[in-house]
Amino acid sequence: MTAFSSLDQIRDVLSKAPTANDAAHIGAQERNGQLTKPPGALGRLEDLAIWYASWHGNPRPKLVAPQVLIFAGNHGVAAQGVSAFPPEVTEQMVFNFQAGGAAINQLCKAFDAKLDVFALDLDQPTHDFTTGPAMDEAACATAFSAGWNAVDPTSDLIVTGEMGIGNTTSAAAICTALFGGAASDWTGAGTGVTGEALDAKTAIVAAGVAQHGGAGDGLDILAALGGRELAAMAGAIASARAHSIPVLLDGFICSAAAACLAKTQASALDHAVAAHLSAEGAHANLLKKIDKKPILSLGLRLGEGSGAALAIGILKGAIACHSGMATFAEAGVADG
Amino acid sequence: MTAFSSLDQIRDVLSKAPTANDAAHIGAQERNGQLTKPPGALGRLEDLAIWYASWHGNPRPKLVAPQVLIFAGNHGVAAQGVSAFPPEVTEQMVFNFQAGGAAINQLCKAFDAKLDVFALDLDQPTHDFTTGPAMDEAACATAFSAGWNAVDPTSDLIVTGEMGIGNTTSAAAICTALFGGAASDWTGAGTGVTGEALDAKTAIVAAGVAQHGGAGDGLDILAALGGRELAAMAGAIASARAHSIPVLLDGFICSAAAACLAKTQASALDHAVAAHLSAEGAHANLLKKIDKKPILSLGLRLGEGSGAALAIGILKGAIACHSGMATFAEAGVADG
Repeated sequence: MTAFSSLDQIRDVLSKAPTANDAAHIGAQERNGQLTKPPGALGRLEDLAIWYASWHGNPRPKLVAPQVLIFAGNHGVAAQGVSAFPPEVTEQMVFNFQAGGAAINQLCKAFDAKLDVFALDLDQPTHDFTTGPAMDEAACATAFSAGWNAVDPTSDLIVTGEMGIGNTTSAAAICTALFGGAASDWTGAGTGVTGEALDAKTAIVAAGVAQHGGAGDGLDILAALGGRELAAMAGAIASARAHSIPVLLDGFICSAAAACLAKTQASALDHAVAAHLSAEGAHANLLKKIDKKPILSLGLRLGEGSGAALAIGILKGAIACHSGMATFAEAGVADG
Repeated sequence: MTAFSSLDQIRDVLSKAPTANDAAHIGAQERNGQLTKPPGALGRLEDLAIWYASWHGNPRPKLVAPQVLIFAGNHGVAAQGVSAFPPEVTEQMVFNFQAGGAAINQLCKAFDAKLDVFALDLDQPTHDFTTGPAMDEAACATAFSAGWNAVDPTSDLIVTGEMGIGNTTSAAAICTALFGGAASDWTGAGTGVTGEALDAKTAIVAAGVAQHGGAGDGLDILAALGGRELAAMAGAIASARAHSIPVLLDGFICSAAAACLAKTQASALDHAVAAHLSAEGAHANLLKKIDKKPILSLGLRLGEGSGAALAIGILKGAIACHSGMATFAEAGVADG
């Protein structure tokens, strides 16, 4: 068990993160060129398989043990009515995850992924960030540690998801602070907030950013405007990197947590691919800012890791082709 | 076994095709509205699950028996060098399918789909369509019948794929004849043809369309400019409809075969969804012409049914969520 007690300890770990395996990368590229298909005919699947091989450290890898982590947290700012759902729904949905009734349960079953759910101090919402920092440094480091320790080192893929009524508000504030622009550029419907309620949500984001927007680097912003589930997702993504396990990023909130890492250490997301483009309006711009191209674009905006879990199927297909196909020589097929 | 001996017999069957199950459609819509997620938060997955339910005839369906059909055919026009690969590769790849070494084998394994491969008179290429019709009516009806009979009535999803050196040339000619425009609008790289070779391919398409472009309806065009594997795919898609089995359309060549049905009977593809947008340049325009929106867009251009097989995973995820999730009432979650 790792227990970070300060953000500087986290900065130190991020600065020492391992890089991809060059030999596996080169080996995977060579293998890809010999498979029984016209060059490039599997499109993005080829890129995904080579990326996965380079982080998995094997030029002909398998993907057999994906782990989906859901972190749930409550937000002080939710008391201001920023969501279409009341704050109690965070805990109710945790029960739903534990009982197997949510979308993510079905997707994990469909793609043989292990699902682990972590409810993070739900009875203690973070502070309302319009009146003070959401978390102090110790609270943020504790939540980050929870995410870090949640990663099973025997997993071969990590997906991080979240549940937290109010957390698109938190993610919008983080994005505004990290990347600039107006609060309205980053604030969207979330669970389904429109009209005056959306205006109020935007004003709350702007108020939070006005207070904490100059807080420092990505980790400082994560503490001041984030939530426990966002800090835990950042911790899990960083922990996966430390174990050289590839990551599929989920939607807007997961990407905002990931962006806090990238704004602290530029290479922090090299082991991660964006699984999907969310229907939450600002996600497209956020993905551009962290230089990620989504695999899927199906209008999902549920969270829970659902978009990334869906993309496990695509990644499995890519790796199955890469590692299972015959070469031209093996199959006796004329090579163009 | 069904043996069509004329195109008029096929027209008759197409005109009598069943429609979707209205009760299952309404039931699926109602169920979707009760599941533990904000309305619409699963995006396209919701549409796919409801579409599948309406054709499967069950408001809470399962997808457990997908069948992938590959049809292989040789093209007289291939002797003119329209592909980056020699004609022998059609048969070599059939052996590769049978030995389990191709991309489609790996994808079928990954998504638990049954794969059946049909080599259609490979020693008898169709006629070169620049000197006469590719197939006479009887040959086209025979290939259509092979596709029709290939559908296992116990399957709950059909994917049709193809292998045939020269068949993007055939598909481009079909599209030009069906939808107008210049041959160059519909002719692309295929396995990797560029420069002067692409110009020559385009001229061959134009010559074929000049001879046969006014041949009649979609089935007449299919016979004059198609190939056995295209006619068989059309037969399998029509047969799936007769059995009320939903279909995932693969890329450019599969969509061209499907378009011949739609141009014969406008509603002929109501039970089909476009699985992916191919990298073959004209596919986007072809999908617009048959009014289909692709699920995936990953730059694939391999054929073999590979893009559609990959989308089986997405459809399985959609149906798993729809049929497996708890309702708000069941889970005790507050409904907004």
